[in-house]
Amino acid sequence: MSKFWSELAKSLEPYTPGEQPKDKKYIKLNTNENPYGPSSKVIEALKDGANDNLKLYPDPNGDELRKTIADYYGLKDEQVFLGNGSDEVLAFSFMAFFNPNEPILFPDITYSFYKVYSNIYNIPYEEVKLNKDFSVPINKLHHSKGGVILPNPNAPTGICLSLKSIEEILQFNKEKIVIIDEAYIDFGGNSAVGFIDQYPNLLVVQTLSKSRSLAGLRVGFALGHKDLISALNYVKNSINSYPLDRLALCGAVQAIKDEEYFQETKNKIIETREKVSQELKSMGFLVIPSLTNFIFMSHTKIHAKELLYSLRERGILVRHFNHARIDNHLRVTIGSEEEMNTFIRILREIVPV
Amino acid sequence: MSKFWSELAKSLEPYTPGEQPKDKKYIKLNTNENPYGPSSKVIEALKDGANDNLKLYPDPNGDELRKTIADYYGLKDEQVFLGNGSDEVLAFSFMAFFNPNEPILFPDITYSFYKVYSNIYNIPYEEVKLNKDFSVPINKLHHSKGGVILPNPNAPTGICLSLKSIEEILQFNKEKIVIIDEAYIDFGGNSAVGFIDQYPNLLVVQTLSKSRSLAGLRVGFALGHKDLISALNYVKNSINSYPLDRLALCGAVQAIKDEEYFQETKNKIIETREKVSQELKSMGFLVIPSLTNFIFMSHTKIHAKELLYSLRERGILVRHFNHARIDNHLRVTIGSEEEMNTFIRILREIVPV
Repeated sequence: MSKFWSELAKSLEPYTPGEQPKDKKYIKLNTNENPYGPSSKVIEALKDGANDNLKLYPDPNGDELRKTIADYYGLKDEQVFLGNGSDEVLAFSFMAFFNPNEPILFPDITYSFYKVYSNIYNIPYEEVKLNKDFSVPINKLHHSKGGVILPNPNAPTGICLSLKSIEEILQFNKEKIVIIDEAYIDFGGNSAVGFIDQYPNLLVVQTLSKSRSLAGLRVGFALGHKDLISALNYVKNSINSYPLDRLALCGAVQAIKDEEYFQETKNKIIETREKVSQELKSMGFLVIPSLTNFIFMSHTKIHAKELLYSLRERGILVRHFNHARIDNHLRVTIGSEEEMNTFIRILREIVPV
Repeated sequence: MSKFWSELAKSLEPYTPGEQPKDKKYIKLNTNENPYGPSSKVIEALKDGANDNLKLYPDPNGDELRKTIADYYGLKDEQVFLGNGSDEVLAFSFMAFFNPNEPILFPDITYSFYKVYSNIYNIPYEEVKLNKDFSVPINKLHHSKGGVILPNPNAPTGICLSLKSIEEILQFNKEKIVIIDEAYIDFGGNSAVGFIDQYPNLLVVQTLSKSRSLAGLRVGFALGHKDLISALNYVKNSINSYPLDRLALCGAVQAIKDEEYFQETKNKIIETREKVSQELKSMGFLVIPSLTNFIFMSHTKIHAKELLYSLRERGILVRHFNHARIDNHLRVTIGSEEEMNTFIRILREIVPV
């Protein structure tokens, strides 16, 4: 910090992403990346796109990608907003829909970036305490003063709400925006996308980082009423006309189009998750039922932090959160079947029988 | 606009980028893109980088690219900040260094995004009126209350300040940040980079969009004292941990490293600029001496707007700004020699002798 920092900069508490270590090769089960590479059609499109045209600015509106996403979800192009990963989309959404003096609601255990956004954009918030089993008390999300944001499935718990619960939140917040952050929806949950034409207060946010294996390409999007998309465009065009580069745009189009590969890889992950969950339970772990590409688990005989370090020593990275109520849990990404076999084998060496 | 927009969103006046038409093929002299493609080493690196690793998040700090840029400018890695184009770097700088209640200074004729940033981040500003010949009245940039931002060379005028003038601005603003936006510096101007170790209040911002032919890849950076870079990282990490994707990072490294290609292409552009300037003058145009990859010109016998439309009809796009004092000027990007020959030939058909 120095005298040159703005008052805002001095007040910030940035988000810490999961580590990307360079010291040695790990089995990375710490950042919810997909174990399978992107579709070969994506790779092909990217290689084709690496050409002289990179001297030109990208399409600032990303029309082709917006149309591809709109078609996929049965929406109109004007109901799609693109951003540099869903984090940027979420940040812009805080600017576009939430106001200082009107507290928004989100769960006390959730994606920790929401607090960071609230802080940087001066949006007050109230944390709704999850039930003991980490389920969301829907009735406490009624009548928000400033709006609601929550991930479905929630992170890092992995618990997914039913569409009935989502609709209840929408109905009891008709004057305010409800953002459903569906980063993990493709791994078994039901998307709220179908509510968009009925609820003009709904914004659904998704990403290509998880189920489409493109964390390295930075593409996220929002779906909602065209008036909401228009507000997001106002914000984007006041900051950066072209947050998606030409390659990200052309790769993303193919990722959405290759339905067969998408289904195949996400089904493999779901299968592995179910198998691993069973094995963990048989070892005495408490495993929360997950509809994501990770599991959230704890054990009565060994503390999560001890487990974290023991796994790390043996070349496996998982994620631990130093937050009250979940500091004895670990979030473990579902890797490939081979990686998860290694994970289970090593866990058996560490965990007391 | 709808009832769901935040007060902030309602107040925005977004920036309008130069058009990227899709209706037919134009000679695009309207967005200051480089007529030459990126280095073949960039293309090769991008093709190599299009692989399975795109399933993984990028390096959030972009260490390899930061080191490459630091080495190039004789700086330390911690003196380099990376962003998604220089626009994002500038936006983050407004958040990191400027305060509400402390007016910043910038020229009245300059990059129009500065006003947009001031608006979205609630930073008051005073516009310093350029002299009649569009030169910057340096003494009016002394003792700013909130800081100074200006492009050098200025846009859309193309006029470049001497390092002596830049140093005067730094000396008379020792308590406040001075941002020198060097988007066009490589086309003949002298960079302020050499002042960084002497002036902890200096932030230099550059881009790979112009002189490195990578507008389509979205890479910009800031250079300055490590405390300033650290403030920018606080802001970035409160919004989006990974604004540069894996391909942008690896392509940019090669763009900085291929010095030979960089020198060759930027020298060609400078040569073309000088030749075109001479021809335009011989046709009665007033051409402001430019140290950029564009020229800013006007004619006594034909109005800029008329010229704009006539050129467009004939397949040539140039940029016109509807701002007082410059609405009879056109900004024309320096294209390839062939493109500029066509431009001059068509101009001869339009302009009264």
